[in-house]
Amino acid sequence: MTGAELTIETLLRRGVDTCFTNPGTSEMHFVAALDRTPAMRSVLALFEGVATGAADGYGRIAGRPAATLLHLGPGMANGLANLHNARRARTPVVNLVGEHALTHRDLDPPLATDIESLARPMSGWVGTVTAGDRLAATVDAAVDAAQGPPGTVATVIVPADLSWSDVPAGPTGGRARADGAATAAMPRLPERSPLGEVVAALRSGEPTAVVVGGRVCSGTALRRAAQVAASAGARLLAETFPGRLERGAGIPAPNRLAYLAELAQVQLDGLRHLVLVDAPLPVSFFAYPGMPGVLVPDGCAVHVLAGPADDVDGALDELARELGVAAAAPVPAPAAGRPDRPTGALTAESLAAAIGAVLPDGAIVSDESNTCGLHIPGTTAGCPPHDWLTLTGGAIGQGLPVATGAAIAAPDRPVLCLEADGSAMYTIQSLWTQAREGLNVTTVVLDNHAYGILAFELSRVGAGTAGPIAASMLELDRPDLDFVALATGMGVPANRASSADELVLLLEKAMAEPGPSLIHAPVPRTM
Amino acid sequence: MTGAELTIETLLRRGVDTCFTNPGTSEMHFVAALDRTPAMRSVLALFEGVATGAADGYGRIAGRPAATLLHLGPGMANGLANLHNARRARTPVVNLVGEHALTHRDLDPPLATDIESLARPMSGWVGTVTAGDRLAATVDAAVDAAQGPPGTVATVIVPADLSWSDVPAGPTGGRARADGAATAAMPRLPERSPLGEVVAALRSGEPTAVVVGGRVCSGTALRRAAQVAASAGARLLAETFPGRLERGAGIPAPNRLAYLAELAQVQLDGLRHLVLVDAPLPVSFFAYPGMPGVLVPDGCAVHVLAGPADDVDGALDELARELGVAAAAPVPAPAAGRPDRPTGALTAESLAAAIGAVLPDGAIVSDESNTCGLHIPGTTAGCPPHDWLTLTGGAIGQGLPVATGAAIAAPDRPVLCLEADGSAMYTIQSLWTQAREGLNVTTVVLDNHAYGILAFELSRVGAGTAGPIAASMLELDRPDLDFVALATGMGVPANRASSADELVLLLEKAMAEPGPSLIHAPVPRTM
Repeated sequence: MTGAELTIETLLRRGVDTCFTNPGTSEMHFVAALDRTPAMRSVLALFEGVATGAADGYGRIAGRPAATLLHLGPGMANGLANLHNARRARTPVVNLVGEHALTHRDLDPPLATDIESLARPMSGWVGTVTAGDRLAATVDAAVDAAQGPPGTVATVIVPADLSWSDVPAGPTGGRARADGAATAAMPRLPERSPLGEVVAALRSGEPTAVVVGGRVCSGTALRRAAQVAASAGARLLAETFPGRLERGAGIPAPNRLAYLAELAQVQLDGLRHLVLVDAPLPVSFFAYPGMPGVLVPDGCAVHVLAGPADDVDGALDELARELGVAAAAPVPAPAAGRPDRPTGALTAESLAAAIGAVLPDGAIVSDESNTCGLHIPGTTAGCPPHDWLTLTGGAIGQGLPVATGAAIAAPDRPVLCLEADGSAMYTIQSLWTQAREGLNVTTVVLDNHAYGILAFELSRVGAGTAGPIAASMLELDRPDLDFVALATGMGVPANRASSADELVLLLEKAMAEPGPSLIHAPVPRTM
Repeated sequence: MTGAELTIETLLRRGVDTCFTNPGTSEMHFVAALDRTPAMRSVLALFEGVATGAADGYGRIAGRPAATLLHLGPGMANGLANLHNARRARTPVVNLVGEHALTHRDLDPPLATDIESLARPMSGWVGTVTAGDRLAATVDAAVDAAQGPPGTVATVIVPADLSWSDVPAGPTGGRARADGAATAAMPRLPERSPLGEVVAALRSGEPTAVVVGGRVCSGTALRRAAQVAASAGARLLAETFPGRLERGAGIPAPNRLAYLAELAQVQLDGLRHLVLVDAPLPVSFFAYPGMPGVLVPDGCAVHVLAGPADDVDGALDELARELGVAAAAPVPAPAAGRPDRPTGALTAESLAAAIGAVLPDGAIVSDESNTCGLHIPGTTAGCPPHDWLTLTGGAIGQGLPVATGAAIAAPDRPVLCLEADGSAMYTIQSLWTQAREGLNVTTVVLDNHAYGILAFELSRVGAGTAGPIAASMLELDRPDLDFVALATGMGVPANRASSADELVLLLEKAMAEPGPSLIHAPVPRTM
């Protein structure tokens, strides 16, 4: 058995059965091994950022890691931005990165680089396999690290000579040591507060908010947190960019902390207690002149019920017991309801109404709509239950790949990708993989012909108003991008919506038909 | 004066007057400063790999650095693959990378990463500015490092609070220390051989080759090296992937060492002396089972006349003097001549003939044609003088960005981009920048519907023949990519060539008209 075969067998044994690939020569033995291990589903991407973003989307929906297969340092580099987002989402991902045979790397051939230095900032765990009998143990350790808690990106670097050589087969059962270790990119673990302190805060009668994040944004944990907050008269907030937020009619609806620090400060104003449940301390996304970085108001105490590495369900149950909150306690949640189908001009508002009017039951929404999409969370709050995947790490170019991976994890669910024009162009190659795999993804490109957020941020950072040169760096209208042509060029059927009425019809048609499609939706700038 | 303004002023003072940008919020003060420093030409890219590859192409042609403007760690990450190629080409490039205010970074906001860890593998020099009065000195040091020799990629990381704050203006004149240092990514400097040893090798009468690389692939150095080799009866070889190779009728034509180790071994077989002039030791691009990594034959001595940090012109003049080679000594070079215009079916051979038949005088060729382009160097050898830019680091996705930057460096020269289908899709966003800037780039996409090189490498690495799953990871024909649609979607006029005759007509038309255009050229697989 070659090292490549053992690697794939070890992944399969651990339940990792999907691999997003963009291989090169140093990974050809992995490609060859795929023929002999057909249980590993391999999905080709035209660019590594598509592969890593798809692994993120897959992991958020499947709850277990996909693998990626990347080519040496440059292939790893091309995948890093979306691994950054996956790391921030605490999504389990296992990267396989080919490396030159180590003796060959020492000759400094053209493709040699320091892969570990590249991998570490975006991986919570990194290992370079140094011997064949360490391969299975190292892959096992990587899967363990990826799964967490906290979930993270684990990167296994496999020298080519180990992937082509015969290696000892089967599980190593702890006989050989693994190569690799956790990195500084793991989440900083906050100190848990004593339970009595959290209970006292929630019983204080003072203005209090429970902030949910990570694993508490869906399922039982979200309902339990909502019950606890309601019983204590506390507000329920969520971190700004959760990896996966379950929402819709009947599901607790925490207020997401605003991206804009000024608005988040309004949300937190007057609070005396914040109870964090798998949520980070609220800090500003960027620094601004004269603005505080930490957004907790003066005089507000911060309590940590559970952090990223803790048993959040157990902690919430214990808290509920202490507070006397029954399992059947009421769960405040939005009522069912949708906006009417909009008519007339296509604007950010009417587009949001159109999404709300048609979003199907059980949809997965990959949301990288940025400034154009501000109204969409409001119009979809009462839609049937769905999952919302957000731009966790702020590295744009996430939406299309995450939608791609989510559709592979959940082939029977409709996936809606809300994608801003500027962000779309970082990983537009995703459309080809969607076409190749026949994925049920409907992409709406919200096209305001600009990096809208930057035009807005330019004034917020105190840099004044854009003159003609600065403005030209923020505008995408010279030339206009034709997303219908781009999509059809990659095999995805596409149409342009010229009115809100037309958008509704196109959305319904796209979501009713199997396979991918794209709707180009030009909208006026909102900022 | 803000730190952002001082940074741009310092670059302008050092002759760096072109900046390829893909900024974010943390770089908005740089964008604002562009309005007040219009001498800095700023060119927007839709993806960072386009910006960095364009800086590489610019530097190879201009002989001085362009700047890039990148957004935090993820923006740096997206630009790394083409910085890898630039580093291997020893192209001078100065990256400006925005960073959070350092106090804000310590709060671990969503976009925080270890930018230096990302930058180091692809940068010969990295510095994070720690105080306003160190800014100008640090930018100066980065330009010094970038220019070399050896030329390299220098990365300056500028915290946002320094870019928005008032800083001491003007050149620092050594008053403040620079932040930053050279990294392990600098070329390893070989030990120079005593001149007498090189002279003895060339006078030995034994089989000898002079291998030129880097700065010896163009201009006076190339002619001088050719004179020396001819006078000594030595062969003239060139490194496999030079950054810029001057070639055509009347210009010395070193045989480039083959990418395939087996072929390079044939080229080197029987040699007793190799004289390296700014060229690396010949090593295999990849490791293969049972194959040597170093390609120097047994019994062949290696002599280094000059390395990447040395004065190559001085070393060659000194050698010529010792050998008694006059400045007017004959320079063996190809005679003028072109292939006839091909007719009939479009194949790799007829495509190569078409390029040779029409390549204009003074053209710049950005060559990422890979397996489909094997015949093109042969058909263009007798064309009028032109520059050939190659895939120096092996990180695909270079051709389109390099052509973009070269066209900005030399607006009066025709640029021909020979681009393979698979490689094109890594940085296809380049076409939009070409349209926006009205660049004289003609792109020919050589489309064999496959990662042709990988299908070939699969058998070479001993992995056998591809079964259906492995083959599907190497083929790009499900769905076919429509490069005409992709180009028009980004504002670049495009056509498809269905025969060799049609390709000739389309090439002549495209190169006669101003602005960019693309020709989609489907060809059968050659490997």
